[in-house]
Amino acid sequence: MSRWAAGVEYIGTAYSGWQAQKRVHGVQAEIEKSLSKIANHPLRVVCAGRTDTGVHAYQQVIHFDTDSVRTPYAWLLGTNSTLPNDVSLRWVQPVADHFDARYSALVRHYRYVIHTHSARSALLHNRVAWWPQQLDAEAMHEAAQALVGRHDFSAFRGSQCQANTPTRTIRHIRVHRSGEFVIIDICANAFLHHMVRNIAGTLSHVGLGKQPVVWVAEVLAGRDRKKAAVNAPPGGLYFVGPEYPAEFALPEPPRPWFPG
Amino acid sequence: MSRWAAGVEYIGTAYSGWQAQKRVHGVQAEIEKSLSKIANHPLRVVCAGRTDTGVHAYQQVIHFDTDSVRTPYAWLLGTNSTLPNDVSLRWVQPVADHFDARYSALVRHYRYVIHTHSARSALLHNRVAWWPQQLDAEAMHEAAQALVGRHDFSAFRGSQCQANTPTRTIRHIRVHRSGEFVIIDICANAFLHHMVRNIAGTLSHVGLGKQPVVWVAEVLAGRDRKKAAVNAPPGGLYFVGPEYPAEFALPEPPRPWFPG
Repeated sequence: MSRWAAGVEYIGTAYSGWQAQKRVHGVQAEIEKSLSKIANHPLRVVCAGRTDTGVHAYQQVIHFDTDSVRTPYAWLLGTNSTLPNDVSLRWVQPVADHFDARYSALVRHYRYVIHTHSARSALLHNRVAWWPQQLDAEAMHEAAQALVGRHDFSAFRGSQCQANTPTRTIRHIRVHRSGEFVIIDICANAFLHHMVRNIAGTLSHVGLGKQPVVWVAEVLAGRDRKKAAVNAPPGGLYFVGPEYPAEFALPEPPRPWFPG
Repeated sequence: MSRWAAGVEYIGTAYSGWQAQKRVHGVQAEIEKSLSKIANHPLRVVCAGRTDTGVHAYQQVIHFDTDSVRTPYAWLLGTNSTLPNDVSLRWVQPVADHFDARYSALVRHYRYVIHTHSARSALLHNRVAWWPQQLDAEAMHEAAQALVGRHDFSAFRGSQCQANTPTRTIRHIRVHRSGEFVIIDICANAFLHHMVRNIAGTLSHVGLGKQPVVWVAEVLAGRDRKKAAVNAPPGGLYFVGPEYPAEFALPEPPRPWFPG
């Protein structure tokens, strides 16, 4: 039995998220089906972070165990030839037996992209969130710094969150403008359900001038989901990727190439 | 009667191109349907350049005539609210009566994007062309310079081209690498049917090392479509936009924001 890791890219629009829910199919099931064909036996995969309905991934990371002997290139090409067009493996490599895609992850990176323009973009439909108003990215960045560190993030926790504790550690948040886009980059040890989208929705209230910069710290301290803003839509959210200890020698999270 | 101009963005994947063909719908028909609703009478539009099946546009430009009195913002919001998600107007403005979206255009800009990576990208499916091999962008750029100027482009003309003459003037071609992408930017007074995709396919043979740099000049001089390489797939092609005389005060073609 040997263990393999792989980087998975997907457009989440057509999926119920990483996991299948009710009658809507999940990304995980597609990957297990394709890998199982190449392995010639049923396979299960474990992922770094389960994403929600409509959320995309630059580099989800998975691991799986198999007795089947294949080269990395054979796994890559074979699996990609059977996966749907909106899911692809970017790399596959053998990994140490004690590697775990979920539990070995040190941090996870997410990116939220808001397109601020009076007209919606056809090219970016379901790839970004669209705000017809202008947003003050500098105010959003300033407000976001209150979230950095180890906190109880109950105020930004989805109602269906199954985590044991609402405490998470945000390593850094950067909000910046790039042309017509406002981009929120956020890195934490782990995330609660809907946490990034709730943070994006709340920061955008500051960006619109509806609330002052200090409001975000107040929302955090209140630990009450009802005090935060409505969560931002899923199409603007990208799981950029997890980071692992150097001993596993896995590829770094990619530099998001989109938008500019 | 007053004349209006508008910038149109679209993903061409679901369309037979700008014009409807047989039973497959075109982008033009969608726009005329939506504008006619807002105008409250049937409208026809004229475009800067008809694009093919599967080809995208950052900024197609159209004009139309109407007696209906609407603000630019009312045209923009009303039309965008009825257009399908993969087509949008980016701006609408009144324009001089002697403006013609097709005949007033001085030059047209196109971009062809090739993703060079061993694995296909799910996020960029139908948004770029995928080459699993590496391409030498510098050799492609050098070879492409033979096409600059006024030439008979019969070697790069599609078999269904209806133009009166195969002579066109290419103002400039730039081929450059940006990360995993090779980008071909090309500007000409006008283009023949399939011309950009035929040039992209031919340049990629040089990029792969299948042909020397001088081969592109030889193909051009031969004026024989059968000597050029097979045309590159439509999903990598973007109509960036036309340019018009300054007197019309229309927005510049956008800076393509994608990929990076």
